[in-house]
Amino acid sequence: MTQMQITAEPGVPQILTSREFDAPTALVYRAFTEPDLLVQWLGPRKYTMTIDRYDLRDGGSWRYVHADDDGNAWGFHGVFHGEPSPNGIVQTFEFEGAPGHVSMDTVTFNEHDGRTTVRTNSVFQSVEARDAMVDAGMADGMSEGYDRLDEVLGRELKGRHDTAG
Amino acid sequence: MTQMQITAEPGVPQILTSREFDAPTALVYRAFTEPDLLVQWLGPRKYTMTIDRYDLRDGGSWRYVHADDDGNAWGFHGVFHGEPSPNGIVQTFEFEGAPGHVSMDTVTFNEHDGRTTVRTNSVFQSVEARDAMVDAGMADGMSEGYDRLDEVLGRELKGRHDTAG
Repeated sequence: MTQMQITAEPGVPQILTSREFDAPTALVYRAFTEPDLLVQWLGPRKYTMTIDRYDLRDGGSWRYVHADDDGNAWGFHGVFHGEPSPNGIVQTFEFEGAPGHVSMDTVTFNEHDGRTTVRTNSVFQSVEARDAMVDAGMADGMSEGYDRLDEVLGRELKGRHDTAG
Repeated sequence: MTQMQITAEPGVPQILTSREFDAPTALVYRAFTEPDLLVQWLGPRKYTMTIDRYDLRDGGSWRYVHADDDGNAWGFHGVFHGEPSPNGIVQTFEFEGAPGHVSMDTVTFNEHDGRTTVRTNSVFQSVEARDAMVDAGMADGMSEGYDRLDEVLGRELKGRHDTAG
């Protein structure tokens, strides 16, 4: 398991992350864009993720809800900008608990020797909004999600080998 | 006529502008959001602006085209995020000549003694993308548009007085 790298420079309303996965880009991209796979890994383990809508196209919108066992729920939504592809996904991101705060995320996938480096680039309306996201534990949640993604990718790769053999 | 202030700090993927107008916020907001008024001022005088769609609501999209007298045309589109109001407008912005490059703009209006200060905050996916926008002459085009907006506001205020008198 590799570690997620995160960069959040002082005075710049941006967060950059990088994480390597032991799977080809075609599979990692599927895990990022197929709802059945996405709900298995996005975010911390303690939340159950439900996808309300997921219209993967230029101008299409998405919405999901994270819920805990105590009945608390948090909604998130955004819009895809440009046609999503393994070359990259651009989407806006809004936490419904903080109306008016919008970030814009660019995700890219780079394959090398059968492994894929996923990079995210999130820009915020202000350094204060960026810092609020950092303070809310964004790095830990994202890192835990990526550890779960390792497991999803492992299961998918195993399933593929089992089917092949 | 006042001057537009622009801030684009080195190493920060953001452009801030500020401009004062001699009109109350209710009217300035109308000029920013009513297509009939918007086409009279947005951008340099040498272009004719045509609005293709303008769905002013949370999640609604807009598109317009700037055309010159030689038959050249440039399209732009984006999506409103959050309910647009005189308290602020958040929208994404894409120039169709540069697919994959998206910025996010926040516009706010502050009234004081019957005058309105309009502030814009644009964040870009990278400093390079921000610099490309600056190099494309964004400040001059915007500043010229704001001078035209002064005229639109003057006409609207005069029309209002004429009607009242």
